[in-house]
Amino acid sequence: MFLVEGNKTLKEIPTSKFRINEIFSVNPAELSAVNLAATEISPNELQKISFLQHPKDSVAVCELKEEMLLEQTGIQLILDGIQDPGNLGTIIRLADWFGISQIICSEDTADFYNPKVIQASMGSFLRVNIVYRDLENYLSENKQPIIGTDMDGTDFYDYQFPAQFNLVLGNEGNGIRPEIETLLTDKITIPRFGKSQSTESLNVAMSAGIILGQIFAKK
Amino acid sequence: MFLVEGNKTLKEIPTSKFRINEIFSVNPAELSAVNLAATEISPNELQKISFLQHPKDSVAVCELKEEMLLEQTGIQLILDGIQDPGNLGTIIRLADWFGISQIICSEDTADFYNPKVIQASMGSFLRVNIVYRDLENYLSENKQPIIGTDMDGTDFYDYQFPAQFNLVLGNEGNGIRPEIETLLTDKITIPRFGKSQSTESLNVAMSAGIILGQIFAKK
Repeated sequence: MFLVEGNKTLKEIPTSKFRINEIFSVNPAELSAVNLAATEISPNELQKISFLQHPKDSVAVCELKEEMLLEQTGIQLILDGIQDPGNLGTIIRLADWFGISQIICSEDTADFYNPKVIQASMGSFLRVNIVYRDLENYLSENKQPIIGTDMDGTDFYDYQFPAQFNLVLGNEGNGIRPEIETLLTDKITIPRFGKSQSTESLNVAMSAGIILGQIFAKK
Repeated sequence: MFLVEGNKTLKEIPTSKFRINEIFSVNPAELSAVNLAATEISPNELQKISFLQHPKDSVAVCELKEEMLLEQTGIQLILDGIQDPGNLGTIIRLADWFGISQIICSEDTADFYNPKVIQASMGSFLRVNIVYRDLENYLSENKQPIIGTDMDGTDFYDYQFPAQFNLVLGNEGNGIRPEIETLLTDKITIPRFGKSQSTESLNVAMSAGIILGQIFAKK
């Protein structure tokens, strides 16, 4: 089981592949209006069961769903060891915005049922298919271009993105691991315009957003 | 006074406008090598004074600096009530990446000396000038274009950005406040490519990143 918080997201579950097992709400009437049955609880009880500092109206206990690999269409994101749940949630939300339907995660990527991931994805986990795979195996058998971000790749503004490909995003501290890097067919870089050499590289989710923004500009 | 954590950022302070008052470190030798004097503390003491769950090597107590408005050059970011310290820090880091030298914040924007902001900015607070102003007054007297993001603005892929302008980013929940919205000279929108109407808008820092990525592509 996993938890989903807040009526807004909760109301979208019935039209997704996920199923609700039980709902606890401080205001069940609002949910019964959309044919969802909830057990009434006090704000104090909600505070106790919620993972949020400022819990919302309701919490739903949902059933884990067996993962299923979809056939590749268009752009897929490949996450190689993303550790921060907030980053994973943000990347899922970003994928949903750009209509990316599938994310393949390495087995050591943060668990997408983690409450922080579900929360940061803002309901987008309902629309983006997420599967965990041995990336080395998966990418070895993948027929599409495998593009990764790297400090000394092609300037992504000059790169001609193909219509269908895999975009690999690496771990926050260590980037893409060597075993996966050797499988890349292309490397791209976001150029830094600031003059300071001390500037840290961009956050992984932010890099993904800037790259996707550019890819969709060219379509 | 405010706190800066971690040797990497700490070593950059002497070449910035900020001054260090005192350093506490679990390994002062590493800092004395770069002519910084530190008081040795135990890992346990560091854990107590650090704001991080996993504290780094050192903590520096720095002196607050009186803010100073710089003359506008190129692109300025205008933050209208950004509440989340993580978002503010991420936006500062992003500005630094793109070489944006100044951010004007509304008086109700999160405090940039907040440890979470300093941490999320990854040292970029040393290079980006940040000032707090009454935005209505400030923008009323500003001669440059004032561009804001809006649900029904011009598709930003079609918009011709001027060489110098202000980019207004609004509050996480409520967007740009009406008093500021009337001062906008242009409104732009990042189009959504995903089909679901339920998709939440992009996070404010992510939107800023995607817009800046596009602006710098056109230069």
